[in-house]
Amino acid sequence: MTVPRIGVTPGDPGGVGPEIVLKALSRPSVLPPAAYILFADSRILEAEEKRLGLRLEAREWRPGGAREAGVFLEHVPGPAGTAIPGRVSAESGQSSFRFFEAAVAEARGGRLEAVATAPISKAAWNLAGLPWRGHTDYLASLYPGAVMSFWSERLRVALFSHHRPLREAVAAVRREALTDFLVTLHRALEKIPGGPYDLLVAGLNPHAGEDGSLGREEEDEIKPAIDRAREAGVPASGPFPPDTVFLRALGRKEAVVVALYHDQGLIAFKLEAFATGVNATLGLPFARTSPDHGTAFDIAGKGVADSRSMEEALRLAAVFSASGS
Amino acid sequence: MTVPRIGVTPGDPGGVGPEIVLKALSRPSVLPPAAYILFADSRILEAEEKRLGLRLEAREWRPGGAREAGVFLEHVPGPAGTAIPGRVSAESGQSSFRFFEAAVAEARGGRLEAVATAPISKAAWNLAGLPWRGHTDYLASLYPGAVMSFWSERLRVALFSHHRPLREAVAAVRREALTDFLVTLHRALEKIPGGPYDLLVAGLNPHAGEDGSLGREEEDEIKPAIDRAREAGVPASGPFPPDTVFLRALGRKEAVVVALYHDQGLIAFKLEAFATGVNATLGLPFARTSPDHGTAFDIAGKGVADSRSMEEALRLAAVFSASGS
Repeated sequence: MTVPRIGVTPGDPGGVGPEIVLKALSRPSVLPPAAYILFADSRILEAEEKRLGLRLEAREWRPGGAREAGVFLEHVPGPAGTAIPGRVSAESGQSSFRFFEAAVAEARGGRLEAVATAPISKAAWNLAGLPWRGHTDYLASLYPGAVMSFWSERLRVALFSHHRPLREAVAAVRREALTDFLVTLHRALEKIPGGPYDLLVAGLNPHAGEDGSLGREEEDEIKPAIDRAREAGVPASGPFPPDTVFLRALGRKEAVVVALYHDQGLIAFKLEAFATGVNATLGLPFARTSPDHGTAFDIAGKGVADSRSMEEALRLAAVFSASGS
Repeated sequence: MTVPRIGVTPGDPGGVGPEIVLKALSRPSVLPPAAYILFADSRILEAEEKRLGLRLEAREWRPGGAREAGVFLEHVPGPAGTAIPGRVSAESGQSSFRFFEAAVAEARGGRLEAVATAPISKAAWNLAGLPWRGHTDYLASLYPGAVMSFWSERLRVALFSHHRPLREAVAAVRREALTDFLVTLHRALEKIPGGPYDLLVAGLNPHAGEDGSLGREEEDEIKPAIDRAREAGVPASGPFPPDTVFLRALGRKEAVVVALYHDQGLIAFKLEAFATGVNATLGLPFARTSPDHGTAFDIAGKGVADSRSMEEALRLAAVFSASGS
C-alpha cells in the first residue's frame, strides 16, 4: 500500500500550533495511514513534548526513502528557537515562515502530496518583514488560481474573494471574474474524491436581489456568469438568497456553496463548524489544509487547546491526497 | 390576573399562514395565558378547520369587554374570501393587508398589547397596489424608529439596515445614523423583560477591518458611533469580527448582536434557528412578532406546515406584552 506523504508545519512557535500538532500526531492510530512529516525546529517539539508529557516517536525524514506510514521529522532551524507562549515576535514570524516555506518547496518538488499547516501569526509575519497576509496569500503568489475553501462534515464553502474591504468585494462581483472563478473551482474539485460537486452560487444582495429590485448585480453579473460557466460544463446553479443558501447545502455531501465575499461564507461556516472546520486551498498541484482557527495566543502554552480541527485538517489532507493531484 | 391582548393575523390566505395560526391556536394550553384575537375573514378559518380537521372554539371579540384568556375572532371580510393554496393574487394581497391593518389599528388605539402576524406575500401586496414591502415596512411608515430584530432561544440579532442593495447598505454605515440606531435600539430593549441587554456591534469588513488595513469604516464610522452611544449610556461594544460575533453572543441571554446589513444578521440567524426563529419589530408602542419564514406557497394547503415558529412568535408576543409597553 502506498501511503500519502503529508508535510505538517507547527505554525507560530508562540501560538497553540505546536501543541495541537503534537496532540494530533501523538495518536497516529486515529489518523488515516500516511507519512506525516513535520517541518519544524526540533527544539520547539522537544519543549512541547516536555510541557504536555507526550512523546512523538518521530523518525528522521529521508525524502528519497521508501514510503512508510508514521511520523517523521525534518529539522528546520528557526531564529526563534523555542518561543514564549503568547508573545508576537519577528523571530517567531521568521521561524513559522521557514517551516512553511520548506514544506511547500518539498510539495512543489513532487515529494509531498499534501501540506497541513497549523496557524501562523499574521502580525508576526508582518514584524518579520514578510509581505504575505498568511499561508493562502503566499500560495496565491505562487499559484494565482488558488481558491480558499472551507470543509466540514455538513458544509463546504468556497470564497470568491476574501481579504478585502467589503466595499471592494462588492465592486469585484463582475461576470468575467466570476465565470473564471467558477471554472477554476470546478476543475480543482474534479480532482477531489467525493464529487462531482455542485456549485451553489450565493447572491450578493438581500433575497438575491429580488429580480433586480434590491440590487442589480444578480441580473447583470451573477446570472450571466452562471450561464457561461454552465455552457463550459460547470454544474453551477443560483444565485440563491444568501441567508438560505447554506441551509440548502447543509448535509449535501456533493454541494459546495460559492460565497461572494469573506463574511458571507465565514459567518455560516464558523457557526456550523467552529471546532472542527478545515480551511483548504484548492487549485494547487498538491493538497493544502489547515485548521479553521488562529494562534489563540491567549491559551497558548496552557495545554488546553482543542486539537480536533487540526486532526480534521490532517484527515482531509489524506483524503485529498488520494486524488493523486 | 390581567392577561395580555394579542392580535393575530393569518397572513396571505393562499400561504401556510392560516394553517400555522390554526395549529398554534387550537392548542392554547401550550401557549402563555392571553386573549388571542384573530383578525381574519371567518370563511378562511372555516375552510382551514375543515381541511385540517381542527376546531378553534373562538368566541366573538368585544374590545370593551373584560380581559379573558382564550381565543377570539374579529371577522374582517376580505375580497379573496377563501383562496386557492399557492396562488398569488391581488385579492389575497388585499385581504392579508386588511387583516393586518385592522389589528394594527386596534393596537395603536391601545386595545391590544401585541400583534403576531403570519407571513404575507410581498408579490401579492404588490399586485394589490400596496406600496409597502411587508409588515415591517408598513410599521416603519407609521413609526420611523421601528427596528427589525430576530429572536431565538440562543441568539438575538437587530438589523441596522435590511431591504436595500448591499452596495447601498455599505455606504449607509455612517457614524450619526449608527449612533442614533444604537440609542433607539437600547431604549426599545429597555422595555423588554430579560434585560438589560448588551449590544455587540459587528464590524463591516473582514476581521472588523484589522485596524484599517481591510477597510476604513470601523475606524471612521463604527468605533466613533459606539463611543458616542456609550457616552449616552448605551451598553454597546465592538466592532467585533463579523464571522465570530455570533459565536460570541450564542447562548448569552442578555446579548443582542447589531448586524450592519441584512445578510450579515440573517445568514447567522437562519442557520441557528431555522424552524423556531421569531422576527420582532422593536421601537413601537406595542409588541409585534412574526415567524421567521415566508408563505411557503409550495406546501400550502397540504397540512404539513411546521407551526413551531408561529407558536414561538405568540410566546414572544406574550413575553414582550408583559413589559407593559
